Amino acid sequence: MYNLLKGKKGIIFGALNEDSIAWKVAERAHEEGATFVLTNAPIAMRMGEINKLAANTGSEIIPADATVMEDLENLVEKSMEILGGKIDFVLHSIGMSINVRKGRHYTESNYDFTHKGFDVSALSFHRVMNVLYKKNAMSEWGSIVALTYMAAQRVFPDYNDMADNKAYLESIARSFGYFFGRDHKVRVNTISQSPTPTTAGSGVKGFGGFLSYAEKMSPLGNATALECADYTLTLFSDLTRKVTLQNLYHDGGFSNMGISDVIMDSFMEGKE
Amino acid sequence: MYNLLKGKKGIIFGALNEDSIAWKVAERAHEEGATFVLTNAPIAMRMGEINKLAANTGSEIIPADATVMEDLENLVEKSMEILGGKIDFVLHSIGMSINVRKGRHYTESNYDFTHKGFDVSALSFHRVMNVLYKKNAMSEWGSIVALTYMAAQRVFPDYNDMADNKAYLESIARSFGYFFGRDHKVRVNTISQSPTPTTAGSGVKGFGGFLSYAEKMSPLGNATALECADYTLTLFSDLTRKVTLQNLYHDGGFSNMGISDVIMDSFMEGKE
Amino acid sequence: MYNLLKGKKGIIFGALNEDSIAWKVAERAHEEGATFVLTNAPIAMRMGEINKLAANTGSEIIPADATVMEDLENLVEKSMEILGGKIDFVLHSIGMSINVRKGRHYTESNYDFTHKGFDVSALSFHRVMNVLYKKNAMSEWGSIVALTYMAAQRVFPDYNDMADNKAYLESIARSFGYFFGRDHKVRVNTISQSPTPTTAGSGVKGFGGFLSYAEKMSPLGNATALECADYTLTLFSDLTRKVTLQNLYHDGGFSNMGISDVIMDSFMEGKE
Amino acid sequence: MYNLLKGKKGIIFGALNEDSIAWKVAERAHEEGATFVLTNAPIAMRMGEINKLAANTGSEIIPADATVMEDLENLVEKSMEILGGKIDFVLHSIGMSINVRKGRHYTESNYDFTHKGFDVSALSFHRVMNVLYKKNAMSEWGSIVALTYMAAQRVFPDYNDMADNKAYLESIARSFGYFFGRDHKVRVNTISQSPTPTTAGSGVKGFGGFLSYAEKMSPLGNATALECADYTLTLFSDLTRKVTLQNLYHDGGFSNMGISDVIMDSFMEGKE
Repeated sequence: MYNLLKGKKGIIFGALNEDSIAWKVAERAHEEGATFVLTNAPIAMRMGEINKLAANTGSEIIPADATVMEDLENLVEKSMEILGGKIDFVLHSIGMSINVRKGRHYTESNYDFTHKGFDVSALSFHRVMNVLYKKNAMSEWGSIVALTYMAAQRVFPDYNDMADNKAYLESIARSFGYFFGRDHKVRVNTISQSPTPTTAGSGVKGFGGFLSYAEKMSPLGNATALECADYTLTLFSDLTRKVTLQNLYHDGGFSNMGISDVIMDSFMEGKE
Repeated sequence: MYNLLKGKKGIIFGALNEDSIAWKVAERAHEEGATFVLTNAPIAMRMGEINKLAANTGSEIIPADATVMEDLENLVEKSMEILGGKIDFVLHSIGMSINVRKGRHYTESNYDFTHKGFDVSALSFHRVMNVLYKKNAMSEWGSIVALTYMAAQRVFPDYNDMADNKAYLESIARSFGYFFGRDHKVRVNTISQSPTPTTAGSGVKGFGGFLSYAEKMSPLGNATALECADYTLTLFSDLTRKVTLQNLYHDGGFSNMGISDVIMDSFMEGKE
Repeated sequence: MYNLLKGKKGIIFGALNEDSIAWKVAERAHEEGATFVLTNAPIAMRMGEINKLAANTGSEIIPADATVMEDLENLVEKSMEILGGKIDFVLHSIGMSINVRKGRHYTESNYDFTHKGFDVSALSFHRVMNVLYKKNAMSEWGSIVALTYMAAQRVFPDYNDMADNKAYLESIARSFGYFFGRDHKVRVNTISQSPTPTTAGSGVKGFGGFLSYAEKMSPLGNATALECADYTLTLFSDLTRKVTLQNLYHDGGFSNMGISDVIMDSFMEGKE
Repeated sequence: MYNLLKGKKGIIFGALNEDSIAWKVAERAHEEGATFVLTNAPIAMRMGEINKLAANTGSEIIPADATVMEDLENLVEKSMEILGGKIDFVLHSIGMSINVRKGRHYTESNYDFTHKGFDVSALSFHRVMNVLYKKNAMSEWGSIVALTYMAAQRVFPDYNDMADNKAYLESIARSFGYFFGRDHKVRVNTISQSPTPTTAGSGVKGFGGFLSYAEKMSPLGNATALECADYTLTLFSDLTRKVTLQNLYHDGGFSNMGISDVIMDSFMEGKE
């Protein structure tokens, strides 16, 4: 409601349903005056309610498998046609581990699953930027954001190979962000979000308990999907032009906590 | 021009002259609809042109030595009276090293100077929050920001004891930020800004050359004082409510660079 | 010459020739009283002089492709037979980027190359630990070390997709290290070494110039391969039993430098 | 028992009683062939049993208040006389918060206490290095280590202003370490140790419970004082010559944990 993104054009990956962070980003970006294209893997879209979101935000949907260059090329070309020019912002919210889905313990990975999850969750971010870069599709001072999780830095045992995928994703943000900044004045960052009860998050074992633990550890509590959308908008806006190559924690303070009083009290009770 | 801070009330420390980051924050906060009190050390204000800024932004000035509790208590009380309620945002932009001013090499510190610089540059941040906290002067979801520099993490030989002061300052942000978040839903962060040609920055030996080095190392170039102001506003806004305890680099990417092509080329030329 | 590894049994991956860090580790481990098996990819061994190293250190060689589970299973089983018991230490020094070799710019990756390089450079570390873990092949208080490079944290433009591979590798160290620690009291760490003129390192574009840059940036100069071997031994020894999940910089201080006087002077000369 | 420090000369600060990490360092350094001087504040020594340690390790004791330059100058001069040459290693294990002792909550610091604690706990490290540097008292490739705690990076609410002091201490290690490395080839590092039941550690509120929490969070459990001594020796040895400016976690893996299974289970039990 600030017109923070007035006139800006974007591409939003990963709006699956109304719990998705990408869904909230789309809704909020629309409110802030942006126009954008929604995209998702064809297979994910069949399950989703993305048509409703498209209608509400006046957006078109272009299916694309983010592991297929041709799909991404088509997406970027069509998006520029539809939106009438270069792209100002891109949200990458894509992640999937087959090892998690199939219940393979981290120490017993199926490496075909690992490769596939890596391709979808991490390398897709490189592919997206590769296409945007070579087509010179980003506006000067445009902004690219990918969503990530702190398991990239610290151990969360049930996060499985998604932890490693996120570490690779964050590295891509730095590696590609350098070239995108140097050559096109485009910034690239990742947002490391609180655990969030989305469809993807909920797939992690023991997610409910962990959500409660993170809530109690964080001085401001967990960040919601809507709050994450708000934060993402600031990174798409013209107010953050010199922020790049960063991994930005949006987590109520969790990332810099050693222990909170509430968790300590809970721990001591458990002992008595 | 987004009304991003419409109706918000603040206190801004450290606007010395129009090169100051705090000066730009005041101007931009005013444009975005905020009202605020300006403050500075009495001794610094005599040198400054702060009256002009106050006139342009419709602000009052309340002198306060940030190392004196009584001054800070007076500042906070008066500010709430003038602004008509609790404080939504605070900017701490205070730093001074007597060892730097007097040209004492880091290995030959005068420890009286060190203590005094520490009191002004680092402990002042604790005092400010102490007063705000005990007077319950911050609004829920208020935001406190202090400016810092990456010398807190990495060696910049001429930054002298300001490096250590900034490390302490950033630690205060986490330590006090925990209690402020837990008890009052207030967030506390530091912005680690590019080297900036302010009065304070320019006091560092060889500053001009270093500015150029940082410019060439950063994929997006150095961040200016005005850009820093814009970024600061996002942290004062309601769009970043769950960002806390963070040290946020606003530096065109410098912090995550190992080496840039431009610096490497310059280095190789120097060798031939 | 301290008998620091007296009686310890190990497996050393990646000794290609006498410039290799793994080669130096083998020589020094032998001097310190360890016995071990040398291994390398069959294709790499044909080029190498590993037989000489084996003779000098009284070691056997077991070829193994670190991307093939059967090879690794054979390696671990045979090693325990040859060495007469469980393994106390493992060195992973494996890395290769086909994108680098083929001169593909980072922004134009061939993704088949990326997958292959990822499999060899990063996922191989998971496979090695997977086999050791499920065969219960590590002694209690054993130690696993992988070599990495700071491009995992910061941008070194010519390091290409090896930067991302190293980020993934370091994440594996944490992720798998948790389970290995919890279940078998085994520690897992990575050493982030100075640029080193090995066969692998020298493949990076502009390596010579960068070596000189790093030398001048680091207060103690670059760490050599032999010094890296010495440091690795401390991590294999019983003196570091509670160090785990860490990425340890062995780089003469480079990682925590913003700028050195020597680099600044060189930069200013280049400008005049 | 490796003669790892054979012929090396050192100064060890902070051996208060047999629970002290510095005490264990002294015992182990003696076993490894070093000779050294023990020192402590005169006031601390009256309470301690340091004479026993001196007898057992063949050491002399030179009292010194680490906040007084004259004391430190006397200490360094006398130590070189007694030991017969330059110093190879120094351990700084000094810390004290009057705010903690007097039970002042972090948000209500007494700033005289803060300054005094800062002087003792942080600035003393600068003073020690200042004296060693200007007297050219360190051998080439000598090693200086200070003990620290992870509260410098993350929030542990009861650690009070010691958190901020440790952040400053770690910054001194980098800042002074640069000059000591550049000019005298001396390395300077900090070890960030697990919570340890020493006299100092036990002063922190709720220490027992926290010790148990850390034990359950760390895949290898907490590191003991003796294990810390062993690790310290590796940093004093010739095997780690190129490790400098680092903060090294010695904590059974705690620092890189997000959550452990044991803590999660305990948390869930507490909820039922």
